[in-house]
Amino acid sequence: MRERPFRIAVCGAGRPPEALLAVASEVGRRIAEAGAVLLCGGLGGVMEAAARGADSAGGLTIGFLPGSSAADANPYIRIPLPTGLGEARNVLVVRTADAAIAIGGEWGTLSEVAFARKVGVPVVLLEPGRFAELGLEIADTAEEAVRLALHHARRERMR
Amino acid sequence: MRERPFRIAVCGAGRPPEALLAVASEVGRRIAEAGAVLLCGGLGGVMEAAARGADSAGGLTIGFLPGSSAADANPYIRIPLPTGLGEARNVLVVRTADAAIAIGGEWGTLSEVAFARKVGVPVVLLEPGRFAELGLEIADTAEEAVRLALHHARRERMR
Amino acid sequence: MRERPFRIAVCGAGRPPEALLAVASEVGRRIAEAGAVLLCGGLGGVMEAAARGADSAGGLTIGFLPGSSAADANPYIRIPLPTGLGEARNVLVVRTADAAIAIGGEWGTLSEVAFARKVGVPVVLLEPGRFAELGLEIADTAEEAVRLALHHARRERMR
Amino acid sequence: MRERPFRIAVCGAGRPPEALLAVASEVGRRIAEAGAVLLCGGLGGVMEAAARGADSAGGLTIGFLPGSSAADANPYIRIPLPTGLGEARNVLVVRTADAAIAIGGEWGTLSEVAFARKVGVPVVLLEPGRFAELGLEIADTAEEAVRLALHHARRERMR
Repeated sequence: MRERPFRIAVCGAGRPPEALLAVASEVGRRIAEAGAVLLCGGLGGVMEAAARGADSAGGLTIGFLPGSSAADANPYIRIPLPTGLGEARNVLVVRTADAAIAIGGEWGTLSEVAFARKVGVPVVLLEPGRFAELGLEIADTAEEAVRLALHHARRERMR
Repeated sequence: MRERPFRIAVCGAGRPPEALLAVASEVGRRIAEAGAVLLCGGLGGVMEAAARGADSAGGLTIGFLPGSSAADANPYIRIPLPTGLGEARNVLVVRTADAAIAIGGEWGTLSEVAFARKVGVPVVLLEPGRFAELGLEIADTAEEAVRLALHHARRERMR
Repeated sequence: MRERPFRIAVCGAGRPPEALLAVASEVGRRIAEAGAVLLCGGLGGVMEAAARGADSAGGLTIGFLPGSSAADANPYIRIPLPTGLGEARNVLVVRTADAAIAIGGEWGTLSEVAFARKVGVPVVLLEPGRFAELGLEIADTAEEAVRLALHHARRERMR
Repeated sequence: MRERPFRIAVCGAGRPPEALLAVASEVGRRIAEAGAVLLCGGLGGVMEAAARGADSAGGLTIGFLPGSSAADANPYIRIPLPTGLGEARNVLVVRTADAAIAIGGEWGTLSEVAFARKVGVPVVLLEPGRFAELGLEIADTAEEAVRLALHHARRERMR
């Protein structure tokens, strides 16, 4: 069996502060450049920026959509997965990943971060805003976030 | 149609600090005394203490279990719901409630709190530990937590 | 611990042939008269008729709703559970029951029947229409369906 | 946006009659040769044979696993998705596909077939055994099954 690519989840809001989009896109691009697959919620904002970055670097992008139509996915999602599970699809995004990167400080993002911690999926924060004091690992740059996430993913696989 | 009873979720760890158990039990008792139904994750710790309190006051207790056997439920759960969904059942506990009370500061609890906020279910914290700085409503006592949760539940119904 | 009441799921279409409604209502009534709790999908048609029957006999009715608003429940549901999971909530209706009764021959109902069989929840059919040849147990009357379902539920508990 | 590849689900038992494995493998191969992505439950039997066929032809294979460890996936799954949802993950396999092919006649397979019909995902049966009389479309060969599934998938996209 060829080695499977790492699956890195990127979590973040559909309507984030503008400044997070460039960061998200760089995160996506670096995930793809490392040969990893991007998992996300498939919609706009951080999800779209990350998918755009990954797609631009030739990476595979998978989007777990809340609704039941693949047409809801942003244009950079190569494999839309219309789950029909509503917001509960959030837990799938992180649960199915080797590691997760959470960008920004919205409640939906925090629910994914906390769920990741609960089920043992490593998670790295970027620009965590009001969530900076939760005692989680925080990266300073997109490059560092992706490097740390891949490091954790690699270690999990070796267990 | 008779008015439906309020459904109040109580979230908290299976192995919490000892001191939280008395608080959880009082929360459960007060929920039942107000004529509301207790929803929880159905297992031990905070979930069991809250269910014990509610059951002792003659209240109805419903437990969303992660596994597929009703026998996993604590003895004070009157209606066990063995979902078979694993930890993802957490989102059901809060999603299906009129309002939620989160006791203590564990990651599983925070995932429910953040999910509640994301989907618009009102949530009140008790003894939030490291989650005290998240900007959420914090009650000082079990009595206050239940009073606030019922207040929010009532307001949601009137919308 | 007092003995928990049996949880009997009733599955059936939201827009069934008119003739099934009286049968569904009698099934609900008999479930309640036996002291069991009715689980269903919470909406109209068979679900509503069964809940009406159970409610008229003073029974407890629980409805797993596909959407996220409790207001979607039919008026005879005492405990609405707005799961937000869409049609996937079907699997919860049967998974969380001690036994299930499926009324009528629609695809949604069959998905619940087959899932019940897959996960080992006993299921009894009533008026199965085109599903009569699947080799499943078929009851001739509402009375027989409830009697068989309770028999299976009792046997499962004794395992 | 480049056109997205079709996503074809293959459903079937983990321990099917031996004779179905060659059929499943051919189905998987033909899906890959058509440039489509294979979705399945990620475990053994029909799922593994189909994934082996697709992988041998250079196709992308995605497996929705019931458990929470990617290591449960069969060796031909390129992207394992450990959902942690137990058997409920069945509904995701078909819900997220453009069309589904069901091979064999087990209850788990039927639950996916019936759910697909319920939510409007086109489904084609191969070797349906006792499910032959349900009025669903039945293909005589692997070639025909894949051709029909792709035909339906194409038509759905054009809606």
